[in-house]
Amino acid sequence: MSAFDSISSLDLQRIWDGVHARVVHGDRITLGVIELDANSVVPEHSHEHEQLGICLSGSLEFRVGDESRELRPGETWSIPGNVPHEVHVGPEGAVVLDVFAPTRDDWREAPGVDARDPRWP
Amino acid sequence: MSAFDSISSLDLQRIWDGVHARVVHGDRITLGVIELDANSVVPEHSHEHEQLGICLSGSLEFRVGDESRELRPGETWSIPGNVPHEVHVGPEGAVVLDVFAPTRDDWREAPGVDARDPRWP
Repeated sequence: MSAFDSISSLDLQRIWDGVHARVVHGDRITLGVIELDANSVVPEHSHEHEQLGICLSGSLEFRVGDESRELRPGETWSIPGNVPHEVHVGPEGAVVLDVFAPTRDDWREAPGVDARDPRWP
Repeated sequence: MSAFDSISSLDLQRIWDGVHARVVHGDRITLGVIELDANSVVPEHSHEHEQLGICLSGSLEFRVGDESRELRPGETWSIPGNVPHEVHVGPEGAVVLDVFAPTRDDWREAPGVDARDPRWP
């Protein structure tokens, strides 16, 4: 297996309605480039995995626990395991990078969707 | 402590000659946005931490173990713990995102340098 990938050659998987990911799984970390449609919503949820991320393009309103913030490219989030979080995406959509530890093995089962060009970079 | 940060408000730290990082440490993961000067070199090294990353801007030649590749924005690397790797940066420099598990506690001691505007986004 190669140490290298291009997001343009990774399968696109559906994570939530209007939210699709291209994912690299390591041994301890999963890295995903996530495309969120305009005005899409990631409903409140939580998981044992720690999650850190950064906005690459677009805008989103992110809530972690009791704290909310409007985020733009270059802004980050840090979500300890089991803390509820949700996202409301802005009118132009967004692309974000999320990383998780341990790996998101549940995402290995996420359904594939038709290939399309990445929205970022 | 807030769940949110902006890379523009994070301290800039020197990692190698010509290589500087703005870093968020979680409990299990360290996420860094790394600015690499034109033609800079990250000499061969290894560490117990797993490392995944993605090129955000510019170009670099990355070697992981016996495999080398020229990388551009949207291209990723995945480095198991203790595998030697090195980087030769292209003539326009590069900005990359690297994540590590466990956290890079050694980077907490990396020297700070004078603040400057982020080169990305």
